[in-house]
Amino acid sequence: MMVLITYDVSTMDTDGQRRLRQVAKQCENYGQRVQNSVFECLVDPQQFKELQLQLQKIVAPETDSLRFYHLGSKWKGKVEHYGSKKGYDPEGFLMI
Amino acid sequence: MMVLITYDVSTMDTDGQRRLRQVAKQCENYGQRVQNSVFECLVDPQQFKELQLQLQKIVAPETDSLRFYHLGSKWKGKVEHYGSKKGYDPEGFLMI
Repeated sequence: MMVLITYDVSTMDTDGQRRLRQVAKQCENYGQRVQNSVFECLVDPQQFKELQLQLQKIVAPETDSLRFYHLGSKWKGKVEHYGSKKGYDPEGFLMI
Repeated sequence: MMVLITYDVSTMDTDGQRRLRQVAKQCENYGQRVQNSVFECLVDPQQFKELQLQLQKIVAPETDSLRFYHLGSKWKGKVEHYGSKKGYDPEGFLMI
C-alpha cells in the first residue's frame, strides 16, 4: 500500500536540525522523496507500523508535525505532478 | 472531494519568496493549511481545476514543484496526524 508522509520539523535549534535529518533518513529507508518534506512510501502494514513508531520516537510532538495519508493500492491514478523534481515510481518505473 | 496539495518553491531569490507567498495565498482560498507547505482542500472538480491552473501560473516549473493527491470523499479515514499544529476539519469540525 502507498502511504504519503509529510512533516514539519522545527529547525530553530541544532536539536531540531538533527531531528529533521533523522526523519528524512528513516523515510528514505522505506520510500521515495518527492519533495523536501514529502515522501511516498510503498509499505505493507507491518512496515508502516515500524516506520510510524520510529518517526514518532524522533520528533518533538510539541513543535513538530507528522501526517500520514493512506493512498491505498490504486494510488497511481490519484497523484498529479507539475514542475521540477519529478518523483520516481517506488515500484521501479518513471512516473509520467 | 478532498485534494491534498504539497509544494516546494525555490526561495533562493525574492521572486521565489513572492511565488511561495502567492501559492500559499491561493491554497488558503480553497482549503486548510495543515503544515508549512501542505494544504487539504475540499473542492468540487471545477474548483480544483481553477486552483490547479492558478497554481501552475504562479510557480516556476524549472525550479518549483506542485503535487496533487486526490483523496476522494472518504478521506477522513485515510489521514493520521502526530504532533503539533493539528489540522482542522475543512468541513467545520475539529479532527480527532
